[in-house]
Amino acid sequence: MAEMVNVAVDAMGGDNAPKEIVKGAVEAVNEDKRVKVFLVGREPEIREELKSYTYDAQRLEVVHAQEVIETGEPPVMAIRKKKDSSIVKAMYMVKDGSCDALVSAGSTGAVLVGGQVIVGRIKGVERPPLAPIIPNINGVSLLLDCGANVDAKASQLLQFARIGSIYMESIIGVSNPRVGLVNIGVEEEKGNALTREAYPLFRDCPDINFVGNVEARDIPFGGADVLVCEAFAGNIVLKMLEGVSGALVAKIKAGMMENLRSKLGALLVKPALKRTLKGFSTEEYGGAPLLGLNGLVVKTHGSSKAVEIRNSILQCIAFKEQNINEKIREQIVL
Amino acid sequence: MAEMVNVAVDAMGGDNAPKEIVKGAVEAVNEDKRVKVFLVGREPEIREELKSYTYDAQRLEVVHAQEVIETGEPPVMAIRKKKDSSIVKAMYMVKDGSCDALVSAGSTGAVLVGGQVIVGRIKGVERPPLAPIIPNINGVSLLLDCGANVDAKASQLLQFARIGSIYMESIIGVSNPRVGLVNIGVEEEKGNALTREAYPLFRDCPDINFVGNVEARDIPFGGADVLVCEAFAGNIVLKMLEGVSGALVAKIKAGMMENLRSKLGALLVKPALKRTLKGFSTEEYGGAPLLGLNGLVVKTHGSSKAVEIRNSILQCIAFKEQNINEKIREQIVL
Repeated sequence: MAEMVNVAVDAMGGDNAPKEIVKGAVEAVNEDKRVKVFLVGREPEIREELKSYTYDAQRLEVVHAQEVIETGEPPVMAIRKKKDSSIVKAMYMVKDGSCDALVSAGSTGAVLVGGQVIVGRIKGVERPPLAPIIPNINGVSLLLDCGANVDAKASQLLQFARIGSIYMESIIGVSNPRVGLVNIGVEEEKGNALTREAYPLFRDCPDINFVGNVEARDIPFGGADVLVCEAFAGNIVLKMLEGVSGALVAKIKAGMMENLRSKLGALLVKPALKRTLKGFSTEEYGGAPLLGLNGLVVKTHGSSKAVEIRNSILQCIAFKEQNINEKIREQIVL
Repeated sequence: MAEMVNVAVDAMGGDNAPKEIVKGAVEAVNEDKRVKVFLVGREPEIREELKSYTYDAQRLEVVHAQEVIETGEPPVMAIRKKKDSSIVKAMYMVKDGSCDALVSAGSTGAVLVGGQVIVGRIKGVERPPLAPIIPNINGVSLLLDCGANVDAKASQLLQFARIGSIYMESIIGVSNPRVGLVNIGVEEEKGNALTREAYPLFRDCPDINFVGNVEARDIPFGGADVLVCEAFAGNIVLKMLEGVSGALVAKIKAGMMENLRSKLGALLVKPALKRTLKGFSTEEYGGAPLLGLNGLVVKTHGSSKAVEIRNSILQCIAFKEQNINEKIREQIVL
């Protein structure tokens, strides 16, 4: 029998905590017997939510933590001072090996800092990238880095490419994933100092399937499976994707309400449209892992509902069973 | 009577040259009596196209240029060597004052280089930004810089903000335009070394209405009227906007064709949807001016059709009548 996958879940993180977090945790436990969840946070509040559900109590424990790190708090200070917070306690459960993974919808800064300071980096990993899965017209791509540490070096971009390739192949099942360097033109000499330095490193690296520079315009059309960039650019890519989708859908909805004829048409197209657009929503793909740590740390959107928490917990199974960290360790030591 | 606005148009630039360029030029001349167009390029080809139209020949001249600069050519070399190309000839017509403006759908690199090398910068302008108008859910914003020169300095970003404010107020008619610094968080200390250095410069500048950092997610929702960033980031913003819109519209069209019910609905919503989405298309707003030159240089999309050429020519009228260059000169000298 396969080993149990132990996941610490920050029950107090995000806009919908603890209600949606607890619900998502219960759903994950009920869906897959390989998962055991530790809900970390204020026990009375968590217990109150748990009353509504039926679940295997052997695979869902509550770990009390009195403090909560708020989104606005300076992360380094918060991680240092709030030892009894849900994030810090959950981080230590990953560090000491009692948990394989941590899922949090809380403060991005605190998760990134805690992951590096408490859980710690795999030896040789210079900077652990935050790597969300983003939708494209034909499927999904992995975008890294979207973290808080901007101004990466070219050698770090190459690490992102290698780590991202492992993840994309092992977890998403894309064999020999195409790696693209996000740039402002396709030619080798295009871009800024960073991309011009990174290009030959990518081209000459035998461990990745480099397909060249990818312009932002091609990202939503699936220009590459692994999209590599420094975090400032990655953040813009991710947030433009969210923003433009959101604005366009709002525009379309308004257009459909314009007159009687369009309203009638809207009723008819709605089910098909909903199915189509679902595949293009960034919310469908669970959380973004912070890759290259001694354990798995998954950051989900602050507005996460139960479905995203559930998906984020379940993705930890593949992460453990595929030995992602072992693979990263081997690659990076090379 | 107002002075005539003389516009040199690169008849050989872009994917649809000379056919759509000539058509757009004729449309502009027929629409507004204040405009005189000089179509620069291979005279026989231009004359052939012109045969199809009726227009006031007093306000549409052909200027022969034998050479064409291709999109793939290294721009600096092309501008230097191809003295008899449509772009270079048109640039010299702006430089010597016989034309007020130049419109080209040709090589972006050649237009940017030619603008700086031949037309020349206004004294004090360190780096002329390429400034497209982009749609948002409520109207439009000016995005600068989207040019080819990446890695700008903070003081240059501040110039972009001041120049962009003048343009937005005088040409688009937004009084006291809100200036936003494109960043990965709203707090002052967020971002990379460049944005952190630029923030206090923006905050302390009395000539602009600075509203703080703007995250990419808020750009499509009209987070600011003037969006300032360095060109690598600007290029990603612009191309993600184009790419996500394109991919999403393709997805929606596919969804509408899914079954009989959705097809029927699509027929009904189509007219309303078309109207709505038109306002969100980057193609509706003519070309992007390269601001801060001794004359106006407008770059339109390589795939421009007649409508974009026409709009780009017509926007030169406001540019001249509002004395934009005089205003930039006064501001920058301060």
